[in-house]
Amino acid sequence: MADTKVYRASTTAPVNIAVVKYWGKRDAKLNLPTNSSLSVTLSQDDLRTLTTASCSSSFDKDTLTLNGEEADVSGARTQACFRELRSRRSALEEKDASLPKLSTMPLRIVSENNFPTAAGLASSAAGLAAFVRAIADLYELPDSPSELSLIARQGSGSACRSLFGGYVAWRMGEKADGSDSLADQVAEASHWPGMKALILVVSAGRKLVPSTSGMQQTVATSALFKHRVEAVVPGHMQAMEEAIRDRDFAKFAEVTMRDSNSFHATCLDTLPPIIYLNEYSKAAIRAVHMLNEAAGRTVAAYTFDAGANPVIYYPEEETEAVVGTLFPALSKTTGWKEGPAYGAMKAVVDLQDVGAILAEGVNRVICTGVGEGPTKSDQFLVAEDGTPVTGSK
Amino acid sequence: MADTKVYRASTTAPVNIAVVKYWGKRDAKLNLPTNSSLSVTLSQDDLRTLTTASCSSSFDKDTLTLNGEEADVSGARTQACFRELRSRRSALEEKDASLPKLSTMPLRIVSENNFPTAAGLASSAAGLAAFVRAIADLYELPDSPSELSLIARQGSGSACRSLFGGYVAWRMGEKADGSDSLADQVAEASHWPGMKALILVVSAGRKLVPSTSGMQQTVATSALFKHRVEAVVPGHMQAMEEAIRDRDFAKFAEVTMRDSNSFHATCLDTLPPIIYLNEYSKAAIRAVHMLNEAAGRTVAAYTFDAGANPVIYYPEEETEAVVGTLFPALSKTTGWKEGPAYGAMKAVVDLQDVGAILAEGVNRVICTGVGEGPTKSDQFLVAEDGTPVTGSK
Repeated sequence: MADTKVYRASTTAPVNIAVVKYWGKRDAKLNLPTNSSLSVTLSQDDLRTLTTASCSSSFDKDTLTLNGEEADVSGARTQACFRELRSRRSALEEKDASLPKLSTMPLRIVSENNFPTAAGLASSAAGLAAFVRAIADLYELPDSPSELSLIARQGSGSACRSLFGGYVAWRMGEKADGSDSLADQVAEASHWPGMKALILVVSAGRKLVPSTSGMQQTVATSALFKHRVEAVVPGHMQAMEEAIRDRDFAKFAEVTMRDSNSFHATCLDTLPPIIYLNEYSKAAIRAVHMLNEAAGRTVAAYTFDAGANPVIYYPEEETEAVVGTLFPALSKTTGWKEGPAYGAMKAVVDLQDVGAILAEGVNRVICTGVGEGPTKSDQFLVAEDGTPVTGSK
Repeated sequence: MADTKVYRASTTAPVNIAVVKYWGKRDAKLNLPTNSSLSVTLSQDDLRTLTTASCSSSFDKDTLTLNGEEADVSGARTQACFRELRSRRSALEEKDASLPKLSTMPLRIVSENNFPTAAGLASSAAGLAAFVRAIADLYELPDSPSELSLIARQGSGSACRSLFGGYVAWRMGEKADGSDSLADQVAEASHWPGMKALILVVSAGRKLVPSTSGMQQTVATSALFKHRVEAVVPGHMQAMEEAIRDRDFAKFAEVTMRDSNSFHATCLDTLPPIIYLNEYSKAAIRAVHMLNEAAGRTVAAYTFDAGANPVIYYPEEETEAVVGTLFPALSKTTGWKEGPAYGAMKAVVDLQDVGAILAEGVNRVICTGVGEGPTKSDQFLVAEDGTPVTGSK
């Protein structure tokens, strides 16, 4: 009698926000980057993807449901992940004939984020990391997170960093086959648990300079990019690892801001130029510099991914200085966890015009901080009989 | 009997807009740049400074009147110009005792622009060039424009390029005393007379990132800046000189846009970052790329000095494509020379949203093109009796 059982595994995976940025591929097919990068994994209490991977011979084909909508699985990146994971499962099955032949069964993957897509956060890293981790758990693969990061990387570059919690490096590697381009953990979240992140979700504004396929356009046209890759990022990687090792926030902040500025500078040096920062982004940059200047010490750092949303890192002990200064401008914005407490904090500087612009452009804040890596979940988005279900949102 | 005669000389000098940008000094006292630069001198029919230099033993001190207001002449830069020019005059007087002792007389300089300061154009280059040229004429110095450029450079770096018409290079030089950091003419205006420039004077917007003393902050903090200076600008200088020699607009345009982007990228890579481009600047960038794409050839190039105003260069033979496309969005803006004719031209592309943003942000256009260098004038801003007079404005 044929095995029509539905096999399942569920995992959550986190978002990560780089402090040394990935931008540019040296191999577009294998998703091999031109430089190493480093990120902070954010708490899954605030931002996470929940993914259930299931397989059964009763399913008719591989499917993927993202936030309730069918997604295309025919793309080369998704197919590469399926192929790599099945091949590893298949190797186990060959060695142990008693194992069910999961590698031959269609997969049904269902995935949901606990934050609205409208938040404008790149959820692909969390999504791909959860996707790979869930299938690896379903297949009971013995691979380490670093080994799995090789697969996630092929799905979405920065996803490889979401396979770990805490502080994570993606080593660019040197080999042509990409076998050394993987993520490793620089430090556990518990090594420096007080790292907070305040994400300002800003109005998109008017996007005048298209960003599609911008990464490879930068590689092809920016003379400054080559210098960033060869001479700037290696120094940032080393300094950032030292800053994390020493829990040196001033150093962490300087490298974070320098690296974000350097990355966006190479975007601007692209032809045609790519400009992600808008008036609200500029206001956040100004606010952070005003804050640090007024405090007389480094209390906050900004960074921007390929978009306009500022992510402001700050150490927990500086909550009063940072949140106490930003909250008055943004008190009407949704997303604050402890509004009354924040309202009672003392600002170190009046942001004036800069605060008014932030008030106009910030639609929502997300208060979060460093967190753990993917975690097995007992919440399933595929029922025992194989039916997709909706999780609590 | 003492000589109380009022000696006078009047000159006009042009504005120049760089296509390979000057940014960063290797010697702040002597105004020695970190890299060479190259500019197009703009027609004085549209933008010029008129300056009368006068001297008389009846004057009580050196004075400078700019657009009707007394200016401070005690600054080190102005003093350096006075000193250098007097010293050259003094050398002539020592050789020829019959010459009046102008070098010992107080100077009265009166200067006026034919464009409002509110236009937001850096008028210091034209102003300093006219200042130096007028005093040199008053003193009847035999120095060539390149020799005078050494003096103007000490007053305001880019002023040295306004001592010539046409296409002008400022050679950075190598010597510590700055004696080889001077301007020379790459080509006369008549070599490539059809170079047009459309300046869009945009709303300042909200200036959030201060630009004061930004230049030296970039030198001190931007890692990408060093690469621009050493590896990028020398290539741009060579390519630009070839483009001008060959009247190759496509090449001229590519280098112009790349150099502007590269310069602004190093500003963004400064800590704190310097961001001159605003939403209106971005719209102009987008409009030019749309225009070139739709035309299927390079018809226009943008460049931005240390500010948000786009300067759009285009060859005269592409007036229909360029003006015909931009005019519909900006038809209500003041400054067009031939509104009805422009209105009848055929756009190569509908700028849509980009046009709407330009319509909102552009306050005034200036239609101009390549022009001649400083010219002696018979209009005097100091009367024969030494009284300052007001020119036609």
